[in-house]
Amino acid sequence: MKKQFLSACLLAGFSFSACFAQKDPKLTEQWNPVPPVINPGSAQKAPSDAIVLFDGKNLSEWVSAKDGTSPAEWVVENGIFTVKPGSGDIKTKQVFEDFQLHIEWRTPAKIEGEGQGRGNSGVFLMEQYELQVLDSYGNTTYSNGQAGSIYKQSMPMVNASKGPGEWQTYDIIFTAPRFLDNGMLKSPARITVLHNGVLIQNNTTIAGATEFIGIATYKKHGPMGFKLQDHGNPVSFRNIWVRKL
Amino acid sequence: MKKQFLSACLLAGFSFSACFAQKDPKLTEQWNPVPPVINPGSAQKAPSDAIVLFDGKNLSEWVSAKDGTSPAEWVVENGIFTVKPGSGDIKTKQVFEDFQLHIEWRTPAKIEGEGQGRGNSGVFLMEQYELQVLDSYGNTTYSNGQAGSIYKQSMPMVNASKGPGEWQTYDIIFTAPRFLDNGMLKSPARITVLHNGVLIQNNTTIAGATEFIGIATYKKHGPMGFKLQDHGNPVSFRNIWVRKL
Amino acid sequence: MKKQFLSACLLAGFSFSACFAQKDPKLTEQWNPVPPVINPGSAQKAPSDAIVLFDGKNLSEWVSAKDGTSPAEWVVENGIFTVKPGSGDIKTKQVFEDFQLHIEWRTPAKIEGEGQGRGNSGVFLMEQYELQVLDSYGNTTYSNGQAGSIYKQSMPMVNASKGPGEWQTYDIIFTAPRFLDNGMLKSPARITVLHNGVLIQNNTTIAGATEFIGIATYKKHGPMGFKLQDHGNPVSFRNIWVRKL
Amino acid sequence: MKKQFLSACLLAGFSFSACFAQKDPKLTEQWNPVPPVINPGSAQKAPSDAIVLFDGKNLSEWVSAKDGTSPAEWVVENGIFTVKPGSGDIKTKQVFEDFQLHIEWRTPAKIEGEGQGRGNSGVFLMEQYELQVLDSYGNTTYSNGQAGSIYKQSMPMVNASKGPGEWQTYDIIFTAPRFLDNGMLKSPARITVLHNGVLIQNNTTIAGATEFIGIATYKKHGPMGFKLQDHGNPVSFRNIWVRKL
Repeated sequence: MKKQFLSACLLAGFSFSACFAQKDPKLTEQWNPVPPVINPGSAQKAPSDAIVLFDGKNLSEWVSAKDGTSPAEWVVENGIFTVKPGSGDIKTKQVFEDFQLHIEWRTPAKIEGEGQGRGNSGVFLMEQYELQVLDSYGNTTYSNGQAGSIYKQSMPMVNASKGPGEWQTYDIIFTAPRFLDNGMLKSPARITVLHNGVLIQNNTTIAGATEFIGIATYKKHGPMGFKLQDHGNPVSFRNIWVRKL
Repeated sequence: MKKQFLSACLLAGFSFSACFAQKDPKLTEQWNPVPPVINPGSAQKAPSDAIVLFDGKNLSEWVSAKDGTSPAEWVVENGIFTVKPGSGDIKTKQVFEDFQLHIEWRTPAKIEGEGQGRGNSGVFLMEQYELQVLDSYGNTTYSNGQAGSIYKQSMPMVNASKGPGEWQTYDIIFTAPRFLDNGMLKSPARITVLHNGVLIQNNTTIAGATEFIGIATYKKHGPMGFKLQDHGNPVSFRNIWVRKL
Repeated sequence: MKKQFLSACLLAGFSFSACFAQKDPKLTEQWNPVPPVINPGSAQKAPSDAIVLFDGKNLSEWVSAKDGTSPAEWVVENGIFTVKPGSGDIKTKQVFEDFQLHIEWRTPAKIEGEGQGRGNSGVFLMEQYELQVLDSYGNTTYSNGQAGSIYKQSMPMVNASKGPGEWQTYDIIFTAPRFLDNGMLKSPARITVLHNGVLIQNNTTIAGATEFIGIATYKKHGPMGFKLQDHGNPVSFRNIWVRKL
Repeated sequence: MKKQFLSACLLAGFSFSACFAQKDPKLTEQWNPVPPVINPGSAQKAPSDAIVLFDGKNLSEWVSAKDGTSPAEWVVENGIFTVKPGSGDIKTKQVFEDFQLHIEWRTPAKIEGEGQGRGNSGVFLMEQYELQVLDSYGNTTYSNGQAGSIYKQSMPMVNASKGPGEWQTYDIIFTAPRFLDNGMLKSPARITVLHNGVLIQNNTTIAGATEFIGIATYKKHGPMGFKLQDHGNPVSFRNIWVRKL
């Protein structure tokens, strides 16, 4: 409080207590807890409190999704890794609940196929809620199946795709679903996604586990990993990190 | 549907209709509307559907917040602009409701002052809800007053600050408050913030207009602009764009 | 502030200003706006700020949903009204956006039919989002089709049904979906429902307009009325009121 | 699917597969899990899955809030219980996290005092988030301190108070706050309140533990009980039950 304010206040006819008390800004300061200090990293480097799921060298954080134990067979080369068509999906060894996830992906520079057959892969959050990966640059398909859609559920707000062969980013904020002991859904999963920096999913409610056929429904589960889809196209990935929330 | 599936289904004893009908994935495709196609831009370039609030050349999108009409006096130089201490806050000519906002800022390389006196400015969303700008790198102050806080309300989840003299980013998703005709609050403002790419506010509810002294409360208003604060420190800004949601 | 506190504070070594200023409770009082005063009514009587959609006498607030103009043909008797099978759905003349809705319904005392064929009707919010009405007392059907479900979308958390011939209540809090100018969904509809006083839908996200076949999707629309379904069963209704939010 | 539909579809020129597959409503039925069956009770009787916190006979579910162990001294008489001024607050033995709570209260028929001094008590959710109880019938006080307010935080949307000496109800849906291991807030508490059946808090975010002086802040905690406030006025309570969510 500045002295001149107090004087003015008193001269204005207010009581000393009113003038004094109502001018202390300290009342609305909160000193505890203190937010943990982290290094935010950069476009190329994960934040210091993140778990790095791919460091450019190997797939030691991943296994085959077929059995959950055998090694991930996808191809690591030049600091990136690429779907090995026919080898099947891969998933992380570690499991997560609520999180912020950063992942970069690239569809083939040479266009092959069309619609869902062109540069198709997917990021399965908790191994079952698919954020679609697709070459959606000038590629017609159903809206809730293009890149950035919650597959077969929610279309992205805009199509912010880059072209074939270009690296693209997903920055994801995910809240896991919660369940009652009896298996009933307590609260659904929610997701916010920035695609190449552009908001495409704004706290979207997820209707259930992704289904290719039929409607999505929930089935009780706990923390789970991330799964990347082998859809037969050589889609590449790099710079993957996750921060538990 | 693949033929082999139909055969297998029939062999498994299901009726033709069951096998057929339950296997058509088209039922869950949604073709309309089609998300608008945009160019996402890059770290240096705004998305094609964004309104650029500073292009590196001039402050033609801004005015003095004192009267809302006279020119913004802050200093434009080398593609950035900097607070001119004592000239007062500036605000945008255009107004907004729900939006995604990208803004980059830099506190002085030479540390002067401490606590709230060091590299202080602020981004006032709708001219009244302050997302704090401060040099919070190794700088002790109250938690709900450090960089990334909703000032005097909600502290950031982590302190993801870069050092003095370094450019930092805020990526903001903002939902405006709504009011009833009688002035009562209908739904509060909500905000999600990535600071240097790290989630620090996760769909946080804003309690009301920022107050230095006393509690925050809401007062009915419509769409409004952004205000940047002159707190007496030469904080710089660049690459500001907003997408209406 | 009590005097003894001030004394103690001073004796503890704090400054007069600190002791004084930090103890004024007035700082967190908010006197404006003043919530409108209403009469809450009772179990039998609508709140004073509600729009009464059925007062026990006639269907003057309703029309046939076939053409939106011809009179609602359902049967009014003894202060209630009942579906006239084959006459078609009816809907309100007035339209609404966000609201609190109270409605009472009763399925026939004599059980006829089973599953979806037993005491079936529905409350279509905004004429398209169906909150299912069904005699679900000891009646097996799919979970997302029983009483209290958002039909074909979200099952109720519990089955709080009363028996055939008993009056039941729905207390509904509804937030309408919002759309962008280009037809894209901005935010989905949300619903909370108390069935006979028991919470069965807790801020549930609605996936889109109810579909008997296929998935629910959204199509841009503004404020709309309520529609009650003629599903061929003589379900009765009474005491319907709505408060705009 | 009805046969006539199939015929019509085929005649319209669609393929057999299209006509057939797109018309199976079973695809959107969800049969599992099955919502638990409960008896919803009545205005006088708790739902069958509720925990009854007062059955009209004794305060065996309550203890003094002073020490958390000694008996609650408030006065039980004629199926209700009443604050014993000076005896202090009471709280439940059991603890809760997310819940639906029903509680009935009555301020003295004879008006004594004014403003905050008239029929004042409070329901402290998780022993710290106060839903105000006050005789707000024709009684002027600050808006965020009247009946139905989240005390010193959020005013009710309307004043739905009944008069002195009349029984009033609160139906509350409460989501507990969640915290990170390091003490930081993960998600705030949220509350919906019907006062005498009228919506007065609509999924309101709670800013922190109620404070008489200064701003509300959060401090990490787990499940906790309900506390009822002895504010010196003989406010009465009855028919209290809670359902865990």
